[in-house]
Amino acid sequence: MQSSEPEVKKIIVKLGKRSYPIFIGNNLLNNAGLFKNYINSKQVMVVTNETIAPLYLDRIIHCLSDLVVESIILPDGEEYKTLEIMNTIITKLLQQRFSRNSCLIALGGGVVGDITGFAAACYQRGIDYIQVPTTVLAQVDSSVGGKTAVNHILGKNMIGAFHQPRAVIADISVLATLDNRELRAGLAEVIKYGLIHDKKFFTWLEQNIVRLLNREYDALCFAIDCSCRNKAEIVAKDEKESGIRALLNLGHTFGHAIETGLCYRDWLHGEAVATGMLMSADLSCRHGWITDDDIARIRKILNTAELPVKLPQGLNSERMLELMSVDKKTRNGILNLVLLKGIGNAIVTDQYDSEKLLETLMHFSAVQEVA
Amino acid sequence: MQSSEPEVKKIIVKLGKRSYPIFIGNNLLNNAGLFKNYINSKQVMVVTNETIAPLYLDRIIHCLSDLVVESIILPDGEEYKTLEIMNTIITKLLQQRFSRNSCLIALGGGVVGDITGFAAACYQRGIDYIQVPTTVLAQVDSSVGGKTAVNHILGKNMIGAFHQPRAVIADISVLATLDNRELRAGLAEVIKYGLIHDKKFFTWLEQNIVRLLNREYDALCFAIDCSCRNKAEIVAKDEKESGIRALLNLGHTFGHAIETGLCYRDWLHGEAVATGMLMSADLSCRHGWITDDDIARIRKILNTAELPVKLPQGLNSERMLELMSVDKKTRNGILNLVLLKGIGNAIVTDQYDSEKLLETLMHFSAVQEVA
Repeated sequence: MQSSEPEVKKIIVKLGKRSYPIFIGNNLLNNAGLFKNYINSKQVMVVTNETIAPLYLDRIIHCLSDLVVESIILPDGEEYKTLEIMNTIITKLLQQRFSRNSCLIALGGGVVGDITGFAAACYQRGIDYIQVPTTVLAQVDSSVGGKTAVNHILGKNMIGAFHQPRAVIADISVLATLDNRELRAGLAEVIKYGLIHDKKFFTWLEQNIVRLLNREYDALCFAIDCSCRNKAEIVAKDEKESGIRALLNLGHTFGHAIETGLCYRDWLHGEAVATGMLMSADLSCRHGWITDDDIARIRKILNTAELPVKLPQGLNSERMLELMSVDKKTRNGILNLVLLKGIGNAIVTDQYDSEKLLETLMHFSAVQEVA
Repeated sequence: MQSSEPEVKKIIVKLGKRSYPIFIGNNLLNNAGLFKNYINSKQVMVVTNETIAPLYLDRIIHCLSDLVVESIILPDGEEYKTLEIMNTIITKLLQQRFSRNSCLIALGGGVVGDITGFAAACYQRGIDYIQVPTTVLAQVDSSVGGKTAVNHILGKNMIGAFHQPRAVIADISVLATLDNRELRAGLAEVIKYGLIHDKKFFTWLEQNIVRLLNREYDALCFAIDCSCRNKAEIVAKDEKESGIRALLNLGHTFGHAIETGLCYRDWLHGEAVATGMLMSADLSCRHGWITDDDIARIRKILNTAELPVKLPQGLNSERMLELMSVDKKTRNGILNLVLLKGIGNAIVTDQYDSEKLLETLMHFSAVQEVA
C-alpha cells in the first residue's frame, strides 16, 4: 500500500525544515515502504511496552527485516514514564552501538511515545524517531507535535524537550485490540478538540459518540483525521507553545494535578483530562462565560463515554491547589488556565476569580468539604 | 562597568534568533547590569559546586539581590556529571516552584556548565540559562556553543541537547583562584584552536605559554578572546555539528575514550584531550600528513604545560578501540576522526588506515604491548 492510495490519509505538520507527515489508515504496520521513507540508517530500535509487544512488535520487525532492528520492551503504565526508564533506553542504544544517524520507533500509547521521543531528543543530543501510536489518545494527541517528556514525582511532564518526529504512522486497525477503558480515555482528547475550537466537530461527536465507542471504522477514521488536522494546525502556528498552543491544554492543568496526586497510578491520562475539562467548563460557567446548557452537553458526552467527572478520593481542593501550583503555565506565580467562552471557543487566561476556582475544586471533590 | 567600556570584550555568537554575546573582562561577577540584561524573570537559580561556592557564590547572589536567587551546590568532579545529579537540579526547581520563565546561572567549570545547560534544556522543555565559566577550559570551550550533556557509564556526553545560553560571562579575575592543574588542562583546549585552524595563534601560544602559566592578565585575556572568536565562528557556521563543527573535537575521540575508561575519575577533561591531540598528530604523521617537526612542536608545548602525553595505566589499545567505538562521530559502524594535515589545518575523515590507528594506540600505551 502506498501513501498515495486513497485509503491512506496524509496530513502535513508544517514546521519548515522540521515538517513531517501524519499517515492515517488501515494495516499501515505492514507497509515497509512507508516506514523506510523516514529511516536514514540501518540501525532501528523499536521501543514498546509489555502490552503491545506480544500484539504488534513482530509485525514491525518483520516489516523492516532488511534493517538491523533491535527492540526494548518497557513496563506498561504512566508511573514508568520516568528518567530512570528513559535511561534504560539510552543504555541499550549504547550497548548496541547505535550511532547518531540511527532511528527509534515508538510503538505504543502516549507513555511510550513521550519517553521514546525524549530518549531520541537526548541520545547523542538528538536522533530521529517515528511515532507509531497504538491508542486513540496517542493517535489524536501525544504522537503529534513533538512534545516529549518524562514525569517527575513533583510534576507531570516536567523533564522533556520539543523534538519533532520524522513521521507519525497511525494505523487504525490496531485500535481493534485496545481495551475499552483506553478507548474511552482517548475519546476525551478527541472531545477536547471540539471544545477548543471546532464546534461543528463537537456536534458531530455528540451524534456519533456511540459509533466511536462501538469502534466503527469510518467514524474512528473521521474523528482521528479531524483531531489530527486540528492539532497540526495549532502546532504549525506555535511549535513551542508561546501562545495559541496552550489551548491544547484544556483540562490538563486540573488533569495533571490529578495524575501527580495519584502518583501516575489508577487513572489514565485521558480520564484525568475528562474530569479536568468539566472542571474548566464549571469554572467558566461560574464566570458566566458558558451556559448551564453547555455544561450539560459536555457532561452528557463524557457520561456516555463513561469517563469520570469527579475528583478521585483523597484529592481535596487544598491538595489540588498545591499540585496545580507547579504547572508549566505558571508565570511569576500566577497560574494560567484554559477556560471556555463557549463550546468551540477556548481561551488561555489568568483573569479568573480565585474564589470561584476554589468553588469549582470543592464542587468536584469526591467527598464533600466544609468551606 | 558597562559592556560598552573598552575593558570588556564582547563577541557575538551569530545564530539568528538564538544569537548571544560572550563577555570577557575583569570583575564581571559584580556587574549586576550585565547579568540583568539577560534575565527575564524574578526567579534565578545559581548552580555551582562545592569548590566554587565558597569563593564566588555570595558575590553573584549579592549582585542579583533584588531578584529571588536560589542556589544548588553540586559535588565537584566529572564523575558527578550524571542524569541523577541533573535530576537533583530539577527537583530543587520544582520544590521552589520555578516557572518556565525562570533562569539558571551555571557558575563553575565545564561540568557545572554542561549539567546546568542540560537541566535548562529539559526543565519544562527548556528555560533560559547564563554561563559564568570559572575555568580556562569552560571560558574558551564548553560554555560557548550550546552543547549540553551528562555522561553515561558507557560513554561521555551521550545524553544531552543543543541548547544555547542567553549569554556567556567570562570573568578573567576568577582564574586567580584556579588551581594549577585546572589551568593547564584548560590550556590544552586553547592549544586546540591553534592546531585546528589558526596557525598564527599556535605560534603565539608557543611564544607565550609561560606567560599563560604565570597567569599574566593580558596574555590570558588575549588567549581567551582568540579562542572564543575561533569557537564562535565555527559554531555560527554549524550549530548542530553536521559538518565543520566536528573539527572542534580534535583529540576528543581519544580523550573521551580515556575519560570513559577511567570512569571519569583521575584525569581532567583537558588532560585527556591533550593526550588525544598528540595521538591525533601521531596518527596524522603516520599517514605522512604532518612532519616529525610538527609533532615535536606539539609535544613541546604540551610538555611545557605539563600535560600528559601517554595513555593512563590500564588502558591498552584493545580497550581503547572498544571505548572509541561508541563515539558520536561513528556512522554506520565507521569511526570518523579529526586529524591534522598540518598545524592549523584539521580535517574530519574516515579515510585513515586502521592498522596505523592501532600502531598509534600501542605507541601511546603506558605499558609496552606485544603486537
